[in-house]
Amino acid sequence: MSFLSIIDILGTFAFAVSGAFSAMEKKLDPFGVIILSFVTAIGGGTLRDVLIGDTPVAWLRNGTTTLVIIAAAIVTMLFDKFLKRFSITLFLFDAFGLGLFTLIGVEKGLQLQFSPGICVALGTITGSFGGVTRDVLLNNVPLVFRKEIYASVSILGGLLYLLLLRVDMLSHLATIISILFIVAFRIVVVRYKLALPKFY
Amino acid sequence: MSFLSIIDILGTFAFAVSGAFSAMEKKLDPFGVIILSFVTAIGGGTLRDVLIGDTPVAWLRNGTTTLVIIAAAIVTMLFDKFLKRFSITLFLFDAFGLGLFTLIGVEKGLQLQFSPGICVALGTITGSFGGVTRDVLLNNVPLVFRKEIYASVSILGGLLYLLLLRVDMLSHLATIISILFIVAFRIVVVRYKLALPKFY
Amino acid sequence: MSFLSIIDILGTFAFAVSGAFSAMEKKLDPFGVIILSFVTAIGGGTLRDVLIGDTPVAWLRNGTTTLVIIAAAIVTMLFDKFLKRFSITLFLFDAFGLGLFTLIGVEKGLQLQFSPGICVALGTITGSFGGVTRDVLLNNVPLVFRKEIYASVSILGGLLYLLLLRVDMLSHLATIISILFIVAFRIVVVRYKLALPKFY
Repeated sequence: MSFLSIIDILGTFAFAVSGAFSAMEKKLDPFGVIILSFVTAIGGGTLRDVLIGDTPVAWLRNGTTTLVIIAAAIVTMLFDKFLKRFSITLFLFDAFGLGLFTLIGVEKGLQLQFSPGICVALGTITGSFGGVTRDVLLNNVPLVFRKEIYASVSILGGLLYLLLLRVDMLSHLATIISILFIVAFRIVVVRYKLALPKFY
Repeated sequence: MSFLSIIDILGTFAFAVSGAFSAMEKKLDPFGVIILSFVTAIGGGTLRDVLIGDTPVAWLRNGTTTLVIIAAAIVTMLFDKFLKRFSITLFLFDAFGLGLFTLIGVEKGLQLQFSPGICVALGTITGSFGGVTRDVLLNNVPLVFRKEIYASVSILGGLLYLLLLRVDMLSHLATIISILFIVAFRIVVVRYKLALPKFY
Repeated sequence: MSFLSIIDILGTFAFAVSGAFSAMEKKLDPFGVIILSFVTAIGGGTLRDVLIGDTPVAWLRNGTTTLVIIAAAIVTMLFDKFLKRFSITLFLFDAFGLGLFTLIGVEKGLQLQFSPGICVALGTITGSFGGVTRDVLLNNVPLVFRKEIYASVSILGGLLYLLLLRVDMLSHLATIISILFIVAFRIVVVRYKLALPKFY
């Protein structure tokens, strides 16, 4: 099993759990919880694959994804009683999902030899669109549009990865550093309530 | 004209009518009613075709679909006075659309030799995504997320179809039985207010 | 640089500005303003390309688009103080975007030799879906569903263009006339509050 597919499974699990938590907060039934897990986990990668024309999209070709998502949703439903502080848990899973999927998206762009700007855009789409879909379906204001810095973190993480590759760092190491950078940055943003200034 | 294309036209008509009814309930103008009919009728099949990469999507290649939808929208606008009980009519058309389109989606998956699980998923997407789009555009909570059982019925109907084919039933007969099963199940669900239990 | 690509850049700029204005009305941060500009400007063309299977979609292949959008968003944020009457400015940019993109969509349909009806549909999707996405993301009722005539104007403009080509008018001239027709029609619609009658 390749390094990237491990990252992919971890990201799928993280976003599936974050989708399940959001759905349970809104009191959806178990089936709704599974759907939300699914949409959150595959939304970003699906939009990316559709935009670049890499179809059938990934989760149709790869049965593992569906199994991981259903397992994540069931585990979340069974063990939520032990997870008192929903919002922090949800936040951490969301941050890891963002980091893991951003890197998957950038890497896919590199494989297809897109320009660096487009690679970063594909990373950001992969990392953030699942959460946007989750929020839109649940009638929440998408996290990405709230005041705190979200998609910008994904963009910076993607740029960092390209930079580390440019200085000949090993790709696995660059991946791990960039993911940890994204998670740490998100924690700092939320901890200190960082927000972009407005010019108007 | 093939059996499947008759099923397709019936499903298109049923969902177009359900879209038109929903739009009229919200007092949209005639153009809005036609758009909603359109989106409801083609939404599921369009998402399915985009995900599997079968483009241009079906309704761009097949002029009949557009004509059926416009006809359904106009008929609904002209004759709504005779249809006092909007909600029941809408419910029945929605149930038939769900049954007809679920089977179209499963069949398409089989033709492309996807695994049984993916075939059922494609059936559920084809059957339910048009209605989800209809509900999102009209600012209703999607039917599929309300308490009563909806997408689960589509999944069970798809599994029943695969099972009937496995025991060598004729495909036409299996199709009709599975569609009637979905419609009947939806009626029972709504009549007796069946809902999935929650474990949390 | 071809005539069509100039039209494309102007339409991109117009819709990007309209997206930025809408986002600023809702007090989004600068990053949110850029995302909204982006989604408004590329939404229609992206849906069109995905539906017809012309992927990777246009903005992934053409770096100019992204630069124009970011420039439009920044200009809008810097100079909004001089633009007191948001709503009129937004309306005019939206009207020009609708005209420019409708023509781009119809022309793309002609190149792919779709039937006239489908060409007009592609024009309407290209012209109006960016604005729909903008409105849905900002929780506004989509302009296209409000009482006044919107998508119908795009349809009539598309039909006018096909008619002018049929009488052997030069394609550039037909393009300009159709765009001005759409803008003028939108102004008349809003000025005199024209709306479609309801039959029910």
